Amino acid sequence: MKSFPKSINNLIDEFSRLPGIGRKTGQRLAFHVLKSDTIFSQNLSSALLDVKISINDCPLCGAMTEQEYCSICTDPKRLDNILCIVEEPSDIYTFERTNSYNGKYHVLGGVLSPLDGVGPDELNIKSLIKRIIPGTEIIIATNPSIEGDTTTLYLAKILEEMEVNITRLARGVPVGGSLDYVDEMTLVRAMENRTSL
Amino acid sequence: MKSFPKSINNLIDEFSRLPGIGRKTGQRLAFHVLKSDTIFSQNLSSALLDVKISINDCPLCGAMTEQEYCSICTDPKRLDNILCIVEEPSDIYTFERTNSYNGKYHVLGGVLSPLDGVGPDELNIKSLIKRIIPGTEIIIATNPSIEGDTTTLYLAKILEEMEVNITRLARGVPVGGSLDYVDEMTLVRAMENRTSL
Repeated sequence: MKSFPKSINNLIDEFSRLPGIGRKTGQRLAFHVLKSDTIFSQNLSSALLDVKISINDCPLCGAMTEQEYCSICTDPKRLDNILCIVEEPSDIYTFERTNSYNGKYHVLGGVLSPLDGVGPDELNIKSLIKRIIPGTEIIIATNPSIEGDTTTLYLAKILEEMEVNITRLARGVPVGGSLDYVDEMTLVRAMENRTSL
Repeated sequence: MKSFPKSINNLIDEFSRLPGIGRKTGQRLAFHVLKSDTIFSQNLSSALLDVKISINDCPLCGAMTEQEYCSICTDPKRLDNILCIVEEPSDIYTFERTNSYNGKYHVLGGVLSPLDGVGPDELNIKSLIKRIIPGTEIIIATNPSIEGDTTTLYLAKILEEMEVNITRLARGVPVGGSLDYVDEMTLVRAMENRTSL
């Protein structure tokens, strides 16, 4: 049995390290690269290097930026008195796509997870506390998971003494979904937090 | 609404050009690259360039190789009198994984498809005819599709006059499958070509 030439095997290995890509998909991608023009693999290759060189963390909020500070922190139209706390830099773009939030963000860089060795010191909490102006509204927008909720409660506790208004995202049925597919815990929350018409 | 910094957008675009990867998956891959060590993106980047530089087509069979001739064409243990004709170089490795074929291969480089402008001159048929020694068994192993079958019939016709034994892969129910999921056309073929026990 002959296996792939070394350089193809190597490319399949590298593709397979990406999330959601196994060896079979890795093979398909590698053969696509082999069949495509050289310019395609050159472009992907340089985009991979470029992104690691150009992107750095905004020292204020932790978002990804190509400048010294990110475009949201330096935007004078953005409100300073609303701060949305998210887990990862990519969460910022999820909110930005809604086109309905006009405050600023703060990236925690993860959630509390003692089993994985992530305690409060591993998250960007110190820089968060430095940024808070009394009277600010803090929206804690971690993922609705156990770790996310734990982190929310922890943040609420340490921010308690500062004069801030702490909120978190509403829990309820997703818009456009069918009740058939909503899990019990979400339905319980949707009932509890029902709103009057 | 703020969108991704330019270099991230660029990487997402390049990832999205790969087959089966849309913008959403492209985003996930790009953020994974951003979160990983620089060495990871450097490795993937150089593997992409390396594969295009190192790999060339074997001038005899059309397989991919890093040497002048591929490892199957130069293997003295491989039989010269059985030739398996496949569509793409990657099909060779599909057969090699079975560990049960000991002949050589010939890569057509596609199938006849007049609508896409692929006629006999676009396929490696001339080099095939040059390789054939009288008495050879030719196994035509194109995909069991309409184009694959058309190509098989075309090859059978032009190879008719040469003293060769032409066969093609058996059609029937896949091993380990359930009859429930087998389509009608496959069942008809499996009935027609039934074998005695």
